[in-house]
Amino acid sequence: MFSLTDHPHRRYNPLTREWVLVSPHRTKRPWQGQVEQPPPEQRPAYDPNCYLCPGNARANGEVNPPYESTFVFTNDFSALLPDIPSGEYASSAGSPDDAAPPLLYARSERGICRVVCFSPRHDLTLAEMDVPDLARVVDVWAQEYEAIGALPFIGYVQIFENRGAMMGASNPHPHGQIWATERMPSLIVREDAAQCDHLAATGRSLLADYLALELEREERIVCANDHFVALVPFWAVWPFETIIISRRHVGALSDLTADERMGLADVLKRLTTRYDNLFQVSFPYSLGFHQRPTDGAPHPAWHLHAHAYPPLLRSATVRKFMVGFELLAEAQRDITPEQAAERLRALPERHYRSV
Amino acid sequence: MFSLTDHPHRRYNPLTREWVLVSPHRTKRPWQGQVEQPPPEQRPAYDPNCYLCPGNARANGEVNPPYESTFVFTNDFSALLPDIPSGEYASSAGSPDDAAPPLLYARSERGICRVVCFSPRHDLTLAEMDVPDLARVVDVWAQEYEAIGALPFIGYVQIFENRGAMMGASNPHPHGQIWATERMPSLIVREDAAQCDHLAATGRSLLADYLALELEREERIVCANDHFVALVPFWAVWPFETIIISRRHVGALSDLTADERMGLADVLKRLTTRYDNLFQVSFPYSLGFHQRPTDGAPHPAWHLHAHAYPPLLRSATVRKFMVGFELLAEAQRDITPEQAAERLRALPERHYRSV
Ligand SMILES: O=P(O)(O)O[C@H]1O[C@H](CO)[C@@H](O)[C@H](O)[C@H]1O
Ligand SMILES: O=P(O)(O)O[C@H]1O[C@H](CO)[C@@H](O)[C@H](O)[C@H]1O
Repeated sequence: MFSLTDHPHRRYNPLTREWVLVSPHRTKRPWQGQVEQPPPEQRPAYDPNCYLCPGNARANGEVNPPYESTFVFTNDFSALLPDIPSGEYASSAGSPDDAAPPLLYARSERGICRVVCFSPRHDLTLAEMDVPDLARVVDVWAQEYEAIGALPFIGYVQIFENRGAMMGASNPHPHGQIWATERMPSLIVREDAAQCDHLAATGRSLLADYLALELEREERIVCANDHFVALVPFWAVWPFETIIISRRHVGALSDLTADERMGLADVLKRLTTRYDNLFQVSFPYSLGFHQRPTDGAPHPAWHLHAHAYPPLLRSATVRKFMVGFELLAEAQRDITPEQAAERLRALPERHYRSV
Repeated sequence: MFSLTDHPHRRYNPLTREWVLVSPHRTKRPWQGQVEQPPPEQRPAYDPNCYLCPGNARANGEVNPPYESTFVFTNDFSALLPDIPSGEYASSAGSPDDAAPPLLYARSERGICRVVCFSPRHDLTLAEMDVPDLARVVDVWAQEYEAIGALPFIGYVQIFENRGAMMGASNPHPHGQIWATERMPSLIVREDAAQCDHLAATGRSLLADYLALELEREERIVCANDHFVALVPFWAVWPFETIIISRRHVGALSDLTADERMGLADVLKRLTTRYDNLFQVSFPYSLGFHQRPTDGAPHPAWHLHAHAYPPLLRSATVRKFMVGFELLAEAQRDITPEQAAERLRALPERHYRSV
């Protein structure tokens, strides 16, 4: 009989409407490929050469204030800019929505890129900050979401953190980024369609319905409190991918009460601590929030959540590569989401470096 | 006025119907992040510890024959298996095609994974093989596509090569893989829909129409012969991404004449040589063919092509990271496709290591 733990299968992601190929029998495969450099275990609390530490100068000559909790500024090398001429480029008349769209088509995209320093301490990470300090970061994210989203030319605000050199972070100082765009990015358009269709068909939030199923089954839950639940989604692509879902159906960080913000800070701390404890290393990942678009429409279907995409697979130095088949055909994973959840659940919530 | 070379914009990919964010102004950004280990410049022609070299033993104890050109075998650690029970798993009645699909949904996926050694020589790469030997590899790909595709439970055959440790290749011996699945993978479903719609709307092949536009404009062409053209697509995501398109509208490698196969071998050699010459390093990439699905339907819209996805951005050791915004929202690139094509076009077609 077909079994999810023994046989290759595909799982469906109802948020993006894509599939992931799961090969549960394949974990015994030996690894002779690339071995990563683990991050240094010790960092100073202040690094005179870090362009994010308080009081230091940045690439453009500006000097950071002597900040004591968080510090936000516009990225000195923004991928998006607010003041550019609007326009489009097309090889023929028409738009991408037509049956035969122009084969060459581009259009200007305005936007804003911000950097959010989580702490003045160069040596900390989300996992090693305390919950009240993390709640202050949540507040800053909520404020930035509201302020940037209120700009007339911003339709979507993407808040994220790239942690670790393996995830392209060029500075270990605890910080995240915000890239806000004029229009909804590709993946947001997909999540939007799925959530809207589910609301139209059932009258309920897709993620609220999904969360209820997961809470009933328990096998993919990692940790939870009264306000947020962290779990390995049924359709996880990355080995230890998780999703954090708010129990209450809200669309954005700015809708959260003070208690709920503290709840989010608590789940973030507990999840990232489990991650670090898994391979006893500062666990690399990209983590980001998906929130209601800010184009002015009400978007009642949107349900606030965060995705964490960590690349490590077998150890602190052996990662999963999303290459070949994955880039050309479909995402693929080896261990099952249930195995990943079980391993994360079994770990302590006390950080391995804390005394 | 809006300009593709100066202002942030999004480009539309008519094959997948996704967008890529282009930030042409951002190339001046300093890099303090991860620096990769370049591959060793010298490898022996035969390595007694390589499980792909002729006459050596593999992990499962089988011994490779003393092969003299190519060698194909079933992967000892296949991600897909031909003999598994069929079945599905769903949290409620219904399928992913419904308006409110089951939120947990999986189904068994049969398949086959094969390994194709390109040459008995451990020290070669596609770029360093000669054209007749490459044409033999093309023949083997065509034969495998036909033989695997003829199996009743195979709906799609993905042929690809992961080159270099940076792309997850665990062995430097020149080889590629074939993963064949029961159903069309996610990305193939998208390319299928786009090609079918274009054929229905215009009566022509999407990629033939696209190729005609590119040949007229010339600015994104890298190299070409009578049968195939290699170019940086208008919507390229990876810094030096290319697409190889057959001039004649055929759906699969097995439809190619002997001359066309030689033409494909020639373009593969010239393109991979330019890649190696760019940073004077054996250039890492994933490269693979998109061909007509093998589910028995005629698929007249399908147009044979190959995508090459190389990660390097600035040098032999600094890559592009597809993280954060890219994983959560939308693909993003810094240099424009036109700049990438110009740099690849300016390089010689004589390999930097050849004397
Ligand atoms: O099969 P290999 O070469 O060991 O593995 C490599 O290619 C596979 C197919 O693209 C990927 O799933 C693996 O992550 C990668 O390391
Ligand atoms: O902006 P950073 O941290 O220098 O850059 C990092 O994050 C960006 C946003 O995800 C990516 O585009 C870059 O590839 C990555 O290196």
